[in-house]
Amino acid sequence: MKNALESLPEILLLGPGPSTTHPEVLHALGRPTIGHLDPKFIELMDETKALLQRLAHTNHPLTLPISGTGSAGMETAFVNFIEPGDRVLVLQNGVFGTRMKDVAQRLRAEVDALDFDWGAPVDPDRLRTHLTGNRYDIIAVVHAETSTGVRNPLDEIAAIVRPTGALFLVDSVTGLGGIPVTLDDWGVDIFYSGTQKCLACPPGLAPFSASGRALAKLRARTSKVPNWYLDLSLISNYWEGAKRAYHHTAPINMIYGLYAALRVILEEGEEAVFARHRAAHEGLVAGLDQLGLELLVEPACRLPMLNAVKVPAGIDEAAVRSRLLADHAIEIGAGLGPLAGNIWRIGLMGHNARPEIVDRVLAALAACLK
Amino acid sequence: MKNALESLPEILLLGPGPSTTHPEVLHALGRPTIGHLDPKFIELMDETKALLQRLAHTNHPLTLPISGTGSAGMETAFVNFIEPGDRVLVLQNGVFGTRMKDVAQRLRAEVDALDFDWGAPVDPDRLRTHLTGNRYDIIAVVHAETSTGVRNPLDEIAAIVRPTGALFLVDSVTGLGGIPVTLDDWGVDIFYSGTQKCLACPPGLAPFSASGRALAKLRARTSKVPNWYLDLSLISNYWEGAKRAYHHTAPINMIYGLYAALRVILEEGEEAVFARHRAAHEGLVAGLDQLGLELLVEPACRLPMLNAVKVPAGIDEAAVRSRLLADHAIEIGAGLGPLAGNIWRIGLMGHNARPEIVDRVLAALAACLK
Repeated sequence: MKNALESLPEILLLGPGPSTTHPEVLHALGRPTIGHLDPKFIELMDETKALLQRLAHTNHPLTLPISGTGSAGMETAFVNFIEPGDRVLVLQNGVFGTRMKDVAQRLRAEVDALDFDWGAPVDPDRLRTHLTGNRYDIIAVVHAETSTGVRNPLDEIAAIVRPTGALFLVDSVTGLGGIPVTLDDWGVDIFYSGTQKCLACPPGLAPFSASGRALAKLRARTSKVPNWYLDLSLISNYWEGAKRAYHHTAPINMIYGLYAALRVILEEGEEAVFARHRAAHEGLVAGLDQLGLELLVEPACRLPMLNAVKVPAGIDEAAVRSRLLADHAIEIGAGLGPLAGNIWRIGLMGHNARPEIVDRVLAALAACLK
Repeated sequence: MKNALESLPEILLLGPGPSTTHPEVLHALGRPTIGHLDPKFIELMDETKALLQRLAHTNHPLTLPISGTGSAGMETAFVNFIEPGDRVLVLQNGVFGTRMKDVAQRLRAEVDALDFDWGAPVDPDRLRTHLTGNRYDIIAVVHAETSTGVRNPLDEIAAIVRPTGALFLVDSVTGLGGIPVTLDDWGVDIFYSGTQKCLACPPGLAPFSASGRALAKLRARTSKVPNWYLDLSLISNYWEGAKRAYHHTAPINMIYGLYAALRVILEEGEEAVFARHRAAHEGLVAGLDQLGLELLVEPACRLPMLNAVKVPAGIDEAAVRSRLLADHAIEIGAGLGPLAGNIWRIGLMGHNARPEIVDRVLAALAACLK
């Protein structure tokens, strides 16, 4: 029987994620599986939690990886804290804000969305005005909008949301490990991320954190969480405390990978990692400029790890991506929704935020645009 | 910074799962990550589906791994096919039947349970009698009850369920890859399994299959599936057809692992694999008998891959497990629920269903019981 794994090419992953997995993480994934209730595994869980708390700058005890991809993190973030009829506000300026609205509506929340242009950040003034006449149980925003390359102004948004008493829900699937994530300073109540972006780990886990206020709402529910698999009141009994009650079998080897990924980042040092992402971004922008290519997003709110590049008139954007993949073994991303056909998305995430990677993609892009 | 992975011991995993991961699967997990929309990855998805269809003996086009552990498979099985008020019957003779009831109730189904003794199989006659006066939308059963070591009589149950018109839902988290799973012959409509048992792959994916009848119920829903992450109508757009619309980022490296695991089994040949499981089981039972140890379950309905062993009077069951782990690097499982303290659970799953493994656990057990 043929082995399809053997014919898989090695591709430089410069799309919107997954990014290239760090070699130490690949090594960790292939370690022998251990039991999910083994005392040594419990220790590893505790250390993984501690590393996550450090990287996300939070003291929330409930900080752990959810057993699914970043989208499972989103599902967890809403399903535990929404009861039917709850009022949710989603700040929407890309695919992932739109997805939040869908997730929350399925859980029978009353969802309002404040819409901002795709490619522009959330406007704090409009948010402030909107909140004058409206009260919400949850206000949700995407920190790093992977579909557009926009970094939303979390400091300002947080300062507006906090006094309203709403739970503050932040998606930083693409931000964590590439730009600062400071949950406790921002006053974030519900947070999730993904492993396959700046953590340089394969997709499959969603780092997650919930504040005491969020957990108080969970405890006060009048009905069970309508999702057994993602019920944090059950999951926390396995991840916390003395008893470690079996809930579902943790994805052991993926947790090895996440632990290794977090360790790689914190060994290098957060500041150095963020500086490396900024430098790679600046190098890319300078090189794109020389090629006559422009970015979609204004400099002040660009994500360093996800660069939305305008497709020049007369260029077949899909053909360029196909050539990059076929001739240069480089994957970049297409636009989504209203940006489909209009942008490429070039990720410089985690292990790929390095000058030699920037040089390689610029050279390949130049060749494909000739 | 210390690396906790380096101090992880290598343990022989003879509990109820995870089982020891096959070396080829470990190797596959550590391969470089590729993009989830890369044409080569799409090919690998198609081949993985085909291998799953072969092993589960089904032609259902919707046969794929769900991006979560076996319990996410259970959640998927209920959340897509239940609408509030639907009538569900759960055949309950262990932890996993009980869990099904909880999952279905959270989704606002009207759930009846038929209870059978833990350690005994579902009694087809009682089921037949019960169904005379009751109509259900879904009838659910656990094929291989991991909490007790019982194999439920799927042939007989299937023959009773089919004429009722209910969707037939089967959990074979522990069965798949160790005993025959013949979905189309049984007329199973909704099926899920897990990777960490007889597939000898780490936990993290749930092989899943749904029939045309089940999908017709999904299409006829009057409300959206109240779970975006596990919505099969969206997931199938990524796993099937020409468009391969992005839903969530597939857990790439875990899919490498599952593909390798399925390939290992089908290369050896299903019949040989099942015979190997039976032989290991028989060797274990003979050896336990020599040690004066008895099994909980009657011979006719024992699972070969999960052996529930009665703890003799006067023996501290937890101390034996601790000694096996500390002195022999062997993990076995404890009893759950009403069986806690009364049984050990010895798994001989996948790569561990071999005579040398049986010899090793018997020798270690003999030493610990002295």
